[in-house]
Amino acid sequence: MTSADPDRVEVLALHGVGEVGADGLAALACDLVAAAAEHGGLTDGDVLAVSSKVVSKALGLRAPADQREQAVAAGTVRVLAERAVAHGRVTRVVEAAAGPVMAAAGVDASNVGVDPDAVLLLPADPDGCAHELRQQLAQHSGNDPDRLGVLVTDTAGRAWRAGQTDLALGASGVRLVHDHRGEPDADGRALSVTSRAVGDELAAAADLVKGKARGVPAALLRGLPAMVDPTAAGARSLVRTGPGDWFARGHVEAVRAALGAAPGGPTASAVGIPATGTETVAERLARALRLTLLPLAEDLAEQAGADLGEDELTLVAADRYVLGVLRARAEVALHAEGLRVVDERWTSDGLRLRVAGRDLSAPPGET
Amino acid sequence: MTSADPDRVEVLALHGVGEVGADGLAALACDLVAAAAEHGGLTDGDVLAVSSKVVSKALGLRAPADQREQAVAAGTVRVLAERAVAHGRVTRVVEAAAGPVMAAAGVDASNVGVDPDAVLLLPADPDGCAHELRQQLAQHSGNDPDRLGVLVTDTAGRAWRAGQTDLALGASGVRLVHDHRGEPDADGRALSVTSRAVGDELAAAADLVKGKARGVPAALLRGLPAMVDPTAAGARSLVRTGPGDWFARGHVEAVRAALGAAPGGPTASAVGIPATGTETVAERLARALRLTLLPLAEDLAEQAGADLGEDELTLVAADRYVLGVLRARAEVALHAEGLRVVDERWTSDGLRLRVAGRDLSAPPGET
Repeated sequence: MTSADPDRVEVLALHGVGEVGADGLAALACDLVAAAAEHGGLTDGDVLAVSSKVVSKALGLRAPADQREQAVAAGTVRVLAERAVAHGRVTRVVEAAAGPVMAAAGVDASNVGVDPDAVLLLPADPDGCAHELRQQLAQHSGNDPDRLGVLVTDTAGRAWRAGQTDLALGASGVRLVHDHRGEPDADGRALSVTSRAVGDELAAAADLVKGKARGVPAALLRGLPAMVDPTAAGARSLVRTGPGDWFARGHVEAVRAALGAAPGGPTASAVGIPATGTETVAERLARALRLTLLPLAEDLAEQAGADLGEDELTLVAADRYVLGVLRARAEVALHAEGLRVVDERWTSDGLRLRVAGRDLSAPPGET
Repeated sequence: MTSADPDRVEVLALHGVGEVGADGLAALACDLVAAAAEHGGLTDGDVLAVSSKVVSKALGLRAPADQREQAVAAGTVRVLAERAVAHGRVTRVVEAAAGPVMAAAGVDASNVGVDPDAVLLLPADPDGCAHELRQQLAQHSGNDPDRLGVLVTDTAGRAWRAGQTDLALGASGVRLVHDHRGEPDADGRALSVTSRAVGDELAAAADLVKGKARGVPAALLRGLPAMVDPTAAGARSLVRTGPGDWFARGHVEAVRAALGAAPGGPTASAVGIPATGTETVAERLARALRLTLLPLAEDLAEQAGADLGEDELTLVAADRYVLGVLRARAEVALHAEGLRVVDERWTSDGLRLRVAGRDLSAPPGET
């Protein structure tokens, strides 16, 4: 029994779990208990980390592959960023109905099993699934449910970091945050602002043995009995959106939204969604112009217009006030496209702006 | 020997490490080897995760606490987001010279030890430190350096998630990314886009036993011999900035930068930096006006002006073109402040805009 050793945590792979069909969480719990036998059976203080994939399979949460886009839309609360990719498709980073911010609302086409033409959907209430699974595990194993913890894990990319890691999508009976605020540190001074997201660290640790391609969709985390707590909040408490979120939109989408084209909406699509790959100055300029002219779409359209060149843009308006509005909007829209005005002159046609790509590798500072 | 078991990973605490002064990485390696004796000594295939804090201490990377702000500035490559906090201070999320995006460039006032009036600085080359530490560990333990891995870990917040987790700041001899792209999944289909950041998952797992307040600044990760690889890239490869980064600025900072006030610069400070707490409409309106008037600061200032009320703003300009520019900029600046125009009318003084707070809890869509 290693669980009493405060200096050791074990991460143990659970094999042969969730390979069958949509047999419900009770059947999944049965599989997990059987798999745990290899490690001496479930023990008080154990935390089970189970991939959302097998939970979704057990619950039959799937959609036909050709309805993937509808499934993503249905699982999306809010779009943070979007980019056009190949074949007319758009990749979106969204706040998923299941809780976290992730690409494609967590709709997943890999490892679906059984039906290769299906995609898997995330459960709408992952914390509820974790709770149900914990009760079922206790029932099948004979353990005290208050001494078991369950995490439903999922895989997501991160801002500013390469690759993906696992996080706690749902949780029951596990302390997810260890708040050091106010505790003295090793020197006896009060720690300032450290609040550890141990729930996500547990999910990450579990992934080290799960390795999805090896067909190990669950792991046992043993040796952290103090983290098992039946009163702990669910994993939705780890989602930080709203006022405390300083990155509620991509840097391009934030600017486009300020000009009236919020990501995920029809206006943004009509203006055109930036592509992941390299685009020419002319392509970006054309999109900036459509964004510039947005407020004129209805009543003022006759008064205004524009001539578009490879690297220049002439803004035309009978009214100087309207021209001023267009000029200011164009500058902001060009910024979103990584372009800047290098020459500006009044012509007989209107106001001509010549643009160039901003040197995006330059130190940002005041540019 | 458990390292041959593919179904088990152990995370083992290392005590009594780095408690002394700036004795260099050789002394730190010596401590680590001694601490590993409790777990049977260093073993081929082991990965050591060491908090940056003890590496910085060993290298004497400290600054006086009253020079904390200068230290943060010196460790900053680029500011992504900034907010005014209490006592006239500003918290910034930055790309640190040490590599990752993190708050305050990783400058840390907790657990400094020895000198309570000092802050710790991150090493400029964490991968180099990890490499040196790996060589020293091999020398002190007699292990083959090619069969040991070293991670220098640090703690950082994440976008969209509560709390902080540990990540790989520096690395040597450890495979940090497991690229599943192109590998068949358990169903035999090609996996689409999964690239696992196992380096960060290892750092997160190590934190489960390290718990900074308990004074355990290092951990041994045992059972992942396949991840030990002397040819592996360093942790800087996990930093994703540049064109692939969709969140290169906060959503507020992106808009302010498009109007000429990039975060971290004197212009942004002159305009005023939004606060973390609640601010009145009048405060936000005043800041939006300063941002609106930015391009007029020099040559056009005499031509334009504004009257500022509690919830309204009158834009004044002799020239209708200038007024149009101001009107468009005001709308964008108000958006960044979470305000919107609810009424707009021409008066004898100029163009009067009445504003209200946007309902930030409403579904974003096309608002």
